[in-house]
Amino acid sequence: MNQRIVYLNGEFVPEKDAKISIYDSALMFGDMVFEMTRSFNKKQFKLREHLERLFAGIRILRIPLDMTIEDLEVICYQVIEKNEPLFTRTDEHRLMINVSRGPLAIYAHVFGGKIQPTLVVADFPLKWTVVGMGKLYDTGVNAVIPSQRAVPSYLIDPKIKNRSRIYYQMANIEVSQYKGDRNWALLLDPDGFIAEGTGDNFFIVKNRTIYTPEGRNILRGISRQYIFELAKQLNLVCLEKNLEVYDVYTADEAFYTATPFCIMPCTSINNVPIGDGKVGEITKLLLKKWSENVGVDIVEQIKLFNKELEKVEGPTPYQFK
Amino acid sequence: MNQRIVYLNGEFVPEKDAKISIYDSALMFGDMVFEMTRSFNKKQFKLREHLERLFAGIRILRIPLDMTIEDLEVICYQVIEKNEPLFTRTDEHRLMINVSRGPLAIYAHVFGGKIQPTLVVADFPLKWTVVGMGKLYDTGVNAVIPSQRAVPSYLIDPKIKNRSRIYYQMANIEVSQYKGDRNWALLLDPDGFIAEGTGDNFFIVKNRTIYTPEGRNILRGISRQYIFELAKQLNLVCLEKNLEVYDVYTADEAFYTATPFCIMPCTSINNVPIGDGKVGEITKLLLKKWSENVGVDIVEQIKLFNKELEKVEGPTPYQFK
Amino acid sequence: MNQRIVYLNGEFVPEKDAKISIYDSALMFGDMVFEMTRSFNKKQFKLREHLERLFAGIRILRIPLDMTIEDLEVICYQVIEKNEPLFTRTDEHRLMINVSRGPLAIYAHVFGGKIQPTLVVADFPLKWTVVGMGKLYDTGVNAVIPSQRAVPSYLIDPKIKNRSRIYYQMANIEVSQYKGDRNWALLLDPDGFIAEGTGDNFFIVKNRTIYTPEGRNILRGISRQYIFELAKQLNLVCLEKNLEVYDVYTADEAFYTATPFCIMPCTSINNVPIGDGKVGEITKLLLKKWSENVGVDIVEQIKLFNKELEKVEGPTPYQFK
Amino acid sequence: MNQRIVYLNGEFVPEKDAKISIYDSALMFGDMVFEMTRSFNKKQFKLREHLERLFAGIRILRIPLDMTIEDLEVICYQVIEKNEPLFTRTDEHRLMINVSRGPLAIYAHVFGGKIQPTLVVADFPLKWTVVGMGKLYDTGVNAVIPSQRAVPSYLIDPKIKNRSRIYYQMANIEVSQYKGDRNWALLLDPDGFIAEGTGDNFFIVKNRTIYTPEGRNILRGISRQYIFELAKQLNLVCLEKNLEVYDVYTADEAFYTATPFCIMPCTSINNVPIGDGKVGEITKLLLKKWSENVGVDIVEQIKLFNKELEKVEGPTPYQFK
Amino acid sequence: MNQRIVYLNGEFVPEKDAKISIYDSALMFGDMVFEMTRSFNKKQFKLREHLERLFAGIRILRIPLDMTIEDLEVICYQVIEKNEPLFTRTDEHRLMINVSRGPLAIYAHVFGGKIQPTLVVADFPLKWTVVGMGKLYDTGVNAVIPSQRAVPSYLIDPKIKNRSRIYYQMANIEVSQYKGDRNWALLLDPDGFIAEGTGDNFFIVKNRTIYTPEGRNILRGISRQYIFELAKQLNLVCLEKNLEVYDVYTADEAFYTATPFCIMPCTSINNVPIGDGKVGEITKLLLKKWSENVGVDIVEQIKLFNKELEKVEGPTPYQFK
Amino acid sequence: MNQRIVYLNGEFVPEKDAKISIYDSALMFGDMVFEMTRSFNKKQFKLREHLERLFAGIRILRIPLDMTIEDLEVICYQVIEKNEPLFTRTDEHRLMINVSRGPLAIYAHVFGGKIQPTLVVADFPLKWTVVGMGKLYDTGVNAVIPSQRAVPSYLIDPKIKNRSRIYYQMANIEVSQYKGDRNWALLLDPDGFIAEGTGDNFFIVKNRTIYTPEGRNILRGISRQYIFELAKQLNLVCLEKNLEVYDVYTADEAFYTATPFCIMPCTSINNVPIGDGKVGEITKLLLKKWSENVGVDIVEQIKLFNKELEKVEGPTPYQFK
Repeated sequence: MNQRIVYLNGEFVPEKDAKISIYDSALMFGDMVFEMTRSFNKKQFKLREHLERLFAGIRILRIPLDMTIEDLEVICYQVIEKNEPLFTRTDEHRLMINVSRGPLAIYAHVFGGKIQPTLVVADFPLKWTVVGMGKLYDTGVNAVIPSQRAVPSYLIDPKIKNRSRIYYQMANIEVSQYKGDRNWALLLDPDGFIAEGTGDNFFIVKNRTIYTPEGRNILRGISRQYIFELAKQLNLVCLEKNLEVYDVYTADEAFYTATPFCIMPCTSINNVPIGDGKVGEITKLLLKKWSENVGVDIVEQIKLFNKELEKVEGPTPYQFK
Repeated sequence: MNQRIVYLNGEFVPEKDAKISIYDSALMFGDMVFEMTRSFNKKQFKLREHLERLFAGIRILRIPLDMTIEDLEVICYQVIEKNEPLFTRTDEHRLMINVSRGPLAIYAHVFGGKIQPTLVVADFPLKWTVVGMGKLYDTGVNAVIPSQRAVPSYLIDPKIKNRSRIYYQMANIEVSQYKGDRNWALLLDPDGFIAEGTGDNFFIVKNRTIYTPEGRNILRGISRQYIFELAKQLNLVCLEKNLEVYDVYTADEAFYTATPFCIMPCTSINNVPIGDGKVGEITKLLLKKWSENVGVDIVEQIKLFNKELEKVEGPTPYQFK
Repeated sequence: MNQRIVYLNGEFVPEKDAKISIYDSALMFGDMVFEMTRSFNKKQFKLREHLERLFAGIRILRIPLDMTIEDLEVICYQVIEKNEPLFTRTDEHRLMINVSRGPLAIYAHVFGGKIQPTLVVADFPLKWTVVGMGKLYDTGVNAVIPSQRAVPSYLIDPKIKNRSRIYYQMANIEVSQYKGDRNWALLLDPDGFIAEGTGDNFFIVKNRTIYTPEGRNILRGISRQYIFELAKQLNLVCLEKNLEVYDVYTADEAFYTATPFCIMPCTSINNVPIGDGKVGEITKLLLKKWSENVGVDIVEQIKLFNKELEKVEGPTPYQFK
Repeated sequence: MNQRIVYLNGEFVPEKDAKISIYDSALMFGDMVFEMTRSFNKKQFKLREHLERLFAGIRILRIPLDMTIEDLEVICYQVIEKNEPLFTRTDEHRLMINVSRGPLAIYAHVFGGKIQPTLVVADFPLKWTVVGMGKLYDTGVNAVIPSQRAVPSYLIDPKIKNRSRIYYQMANIEVSQYKGDRNWALLLDPDGFIAEGTGDNFFIVKNRTIYTPEGRNILRGISRQYIFELAKQLNLVCLEKNLEVYDVYTADEAFYTATPFCIMPCTSINNVPIGDGKVGEITKLLLKKWSENVGVDIVEQIKLFNKELEKVEGPTPYQFK
Repeated sequence: MNQRIVYLNGEFVPEKDAKISIYDSALMFGDMVFEMTRSFNKKQFKLREHLERLFAGIRILRIPLDMTIEDLEVICYQVIEKNEPLFTRTDEHRLMINVSRGPLAIYAHVFGGKIQPTLVVADFPLKWTVVGMGKLYDTGVNAVIPSQRAVPSYLIDPKIKNRSRIYYQMANIEVSQYKGDRNWALLLDPDGFIAEGTGDNFFIVKNRTIYTPEGRNILRGISRQYIFELAKQLNLVCLEKNLEVYDVYTADEAFYTATPFCIMPCTSINNVPIGDGKVGEITKLLLKKWSENVGVDIVEQIKLFNKELEKVEGPTPYQFK
Repeated sequence: MNQRIVYLNGEFVPEKDAKISIYDSALMFGDMVFEMTRSFNKKQFKLREHLERLFAGIRILRIPLDMTIEDLEVICYQVIEKNEPLFTRTDEHRLMINVSRGPLAIYAHVFGGKIQPTLVVADFPLKWTVVGMGKLYDTGVNAVIPSQRAVPSYLIDPKIKNRSRIYYQMANIEVSQYKGDRNWALLLDPDGFIAEGTGDNFFIVKNRTIYTPEGRNILRGISRQYIFELAKQLNLVCLEKNLEVYDVYTADEAFYTATPFCIMPCTSINNVPIGDGKVGEITKLLLKKWSENVGVDIVEQIKLFNKELEKVEGPTPYQFK
């Protein structure tokens, strides 16, 4: 049979059967931590860093997962190995790793009295995630500040990559009502500082210095962290700073980062051009360097993916990312 | 076959197979609304009110569920009917109704290109939910104010009964570390007002007037609403008011409300007795009236349930409610 | 000569010459209070209430205006009398009354050493203000919550009808970028409560009770106040209450109020229908009663005005109200 | 003719006729950006920086001004040239540049259907602005924290030099009621951090390091920026930092900066001496260096101006700056 | 011997020896609750209510005082009885009752290993507390809003009458720097609502209805509570409401209440007259009714006290109340 | 006579008589500043720094103490000299220096009309303060985040070491109810940042860099300051930073600092191990270096003290520190 498989609590199951009980704490409370990775040329990128962040969340949420980082790493590679035959030559592996404390104790009887944490490792082609993004590398996206604010870390800490993110969907719905088709949400936190997108981090460039919000009311993305590395390689300064909408309006360049698309140029905010309204020079440099480092032309690959999938019916925007 | 069944997107499946795809928006974002009901003497209580609240959430979250309230009501009764043979004579039906917008569009290919909202109606014996609660009707519980604050409505509206509630679990974990075995969390909102428990509402009684927090940073519970009805029947005044910890310390009585246990006396806060530290007179009156109205001695029934299940191993406290 | 005249510091000047010195505190600091009124059948409506509110602002801002309310009332009627010949038979008089403390003292020399408060009374046909609104009485407007929050009263008190309102324009700009052509801004205050539109108040109706935000972070509009009177006449209850977006989503009806258009139905919020998405019954009742009380069919009059002006090129939305 | 002239939308008009229509968005909403400059020895100081800040505001407020920075710069110099004959040999040119989006569209008919942005360039002797300040260079001023808080940037961004500043006047009124005649307002933002004066920036010196509030809830003044340059020239460290009242109480020195008076020593806060209560050494160094750089003894020039104007009747304090 | 005596932990000691150990939690942490009462015609007023509030604080702070309310009441009367011979015929008894948890445990050895709660009951002539107030009943006081905000109840609950009130002194110091000699502090809470004075409550009257701030960020004064009783007797409505500075500016009357002076008219705020700037009619009615009820002309008595003490050197304002 | 003596307003009195009048502003308002020092090998540590901080508080609170730092230093040494004979050879001198503005002016008559600031210098063996702490150097303490938040500096500035700290006791009471016997409170400020313990500062170590909260809503402890010195000596980087609970969860090490115990290892937070849950390497290095610098093995000395006092009955936890 030719369906992708997913690791699920010790078993390998077909992807469409990769499901979580309705009594799982994940579904009851959004009480789940997760990671989503990607490969470049089939090689996982920063998998270890992803797993370390995952285990920090597991510890803070006190999920009694009886497994080491190394154990989980092995499972990840097993899943990839099993699925590779189903991937095309150009496909990249996108892993999704989910961990919850499992079904609530009061439902234990449904599971024969035995409950345990839920662990899922799925693996699917990256191309599905970047549908329609290729052309945006040329135009850049338009950042839109919705009314919805980011939940601050003292209420639900976004640094723990958790699944209580309904406000991302609320923000996406809001942004879907703006005119234009290249709008991406950019959330403010309750203090009015730029936080993050709905699943991505944000950067600006001003006078050749790169700035990104302090790592407080945001997910500290792995790609975000990699920008600091790239900047170093390029002899550029990259700083954490409380950023305001004013800073974006008066920036020279801006971009989003996330695992699947790496760096997405942002050329306007609320439809006011940033800098000259074109994709920025530093943005291009970073994309180029990243591509070199991983041996993949990031933009060309995504444009290629897009062509392969162009017949796919477009999802409504708030189901997009 | 003798396993309970669950309605899942048009089909009736065994309870242990009632699962949600890992690509569902519910699991991705905690982007799901739900209701949980109960019966008294096998008769559903306020099912219509539950469904109306559910549909308000569906509308605000723009879940394209193609179904009326009446349609869903029919399904609920079908599920009950199918499961009744598996319930004992004294069992009550606890329904759990979940609705999400379904798998994210980018994963449509996994589902043959066709994605639709997810609808689940499960039905299980109420007794599982009230494990160990019987004795608390005699002693009352101890309300504990954890450090974790309730997420306010302008960030994630708790009036929409949604599944992005990881902070409930965080609060439960915190409270599990207090000395004593009858501690229930009582959350403050960021303004310092009493909000709610982790799945229940809170009331105090002072000079024979009943008070409960304004319906802002809380779920406006169906049981909470019923207290207003009961108060009317008993010629008591019941008011919404911003309540502070001070008001609880200086109250004569206090109690929690929720669908499974109806009214749970609260006799102390942070271990300081409320009033004389005994279950309050008004609290008892309300419980008595409710029992009369539904023809079930609420407390005795739960004590009976507890006896039936007393061999069950105790769940850890933060998995309790 | 056939140009309308404006009272300006003791003189009557042509409207196009009604100007304020660049050294005036009004222009330097937005340090000016004002009122805008209208007539029904040429008769000023609640002029006295407008002037009383104006004088409250003058007192709090300590503008040394050497004039009584009665004096100013006389001037208002003089201006109307002088302009009436230039108005058509169906025109209504819209007064704009501006008061500032006048040029800053350091520029006194420019004015011969003598500085005094600035007082302006302008008068122009109401029809200009309601351009294009007629059709909205049939469809209702769509309330949009922008990211821009209302400035709360402890920073700049909106109850003083002042001219430091750049955030109204910022909100209008934002809303102009939404899809659709019947979007009106609805501002939240920093607590997440509904405040007001950008120059109008907001009401909802739920179970035949009328609610409007507490008179805190809003202008307490004269039309808003009149709704309480109308409700009384119609035996309806009208209450002040902290309202949230949730309350609007779950309301039966909603409407805006302001002097020029009196009551404007609001039939959706963020494009989600309110109630059945049609103009509400209570809304219609209020409009009808108001029309009766003033002897003018408010809606028909505005539709008539619109026809007269339909050749006028449409202003961009954020310059609209 | 011997009156100063002002550029007003393409024309040069006498200063006393430099007026703005009452229908202008500037007067309606405080919706105007502006700059105020000065010369040293008749030479404009940092005019380019002022204009760049102005154009950032124009872009964010979306004022459709059809003009480049260079165009506006030319106009500025034209105005100066035209007015120079009316200035004394020792006078300095203080420019005021105002830009609004012009009359609201609904009033277009008043202006023949044609509305355009409003642009004003005025030019008057600096001496009027610094009336009575000379002696304060010897004593220093007393900073007073009024109850009025600065409006934070997420509500109305003070980094955009706008005209919705009624709270400056409210603060000035408050401070005018304190005992003493050398009180200057020093505003806190809602977080309790030092923000700015009512038209000036604030600095402290501690252990020879210079500190000024982060550039968030303040206008980032051109003079403020110049302090960083001067510090560099003097081998002093100058840092942005969240400052609290405590930091001012325990500082060694303090001063205000603004274009007309450059640097004003502040020797006490709420009447508690800062350091030894005398004008600070670093403060003097900065004033000296600035004077050297521009070839004008800043303090002596202002003392001279004061003598020339000493017959002028004193304005009330809140009309002062 | 002719010195007043004070009850101190079971003994009666001369007033000047009524002292608390430096190791007492009261001095270490401001960790003490207290009450201050007065008599009318030698008869204690609402002593029971004072003691009940005290015991609420004792319970919340968990001070292990081994005594009933009745016990303490007896002590109060003993102290009065012992001191009465030292009071003049016209003197009234002002009790001060202090309770702390006593010396910190680590200092137990200093006290022979035995530590116990500290209980003090002092009793001195009321006249000392109302020095110089008599004339203010004719002019009314001027309410001044200082920069210092009231500490909100979720940080330190002012409803517990505790001794961590350094911010009262900070506010008093601030107000002492205003021009004029009849300034009384009026604190805002962090939300910008009127809270209380520095030891007194605040009321306004508008259209014959009496309003006072909600009982949240304030001490719920015994005199404040008595105003509700008086209002009832006078057929006036008295309501709790969030009040803002605007409400005070636009009120008809205002007054402060506290135990020693009962009701003090407030005739201006920030020097802007309230109503006509004279002592209000309702204020006078309340004072008259109160006087009748207790058989003492409150104002005349205080004027008499003032004459007796007029030689006393005036304390600095911030040591006043 | 063999009782320790205390300096009290110019006199030397036995320790048990070191008391403050009930009419003192310290007792009335918690209006007192203080310092607590210690010696190493009988030599006072950083006494000068303590006194400088004390005098900053005196200046801000405007306490008219007529004395220089030098004067007070002399008194401190006199007190030590007088008490030394009563100390054992191994005892260290712990000074407590209290300053208030003295009795309130209205009670002046009790003191013969003469009131003056209150100044106390007490001196007692350090060992009493560190009862039971010795064993905690081996296990580390468990940091617990209570619901009680730190009062932020814009309400009551904790940088002024004042006595309005009832919230410390409230936090201690709360923490005393947690399971376990090595719990120490760790307060968040209202922004959700780590502030301080109830009388101590907090540090974490991550990747060999030492971090401590910014000096804003905390007391800037002398021991805290000394950590910066020690870090320098050890070639370690020590930084001020806004820290969140997440940062503590993911730190490698953590510790508290305060004068009596210098550095106390913290090995878990809310019972989740920090790093490997053992006392950290950097923590040990700092303790070792401090010990070397002062010539006292800090830990061994405290363990010795503990043995000497082990018969002492344990105080309840919230009376502990």
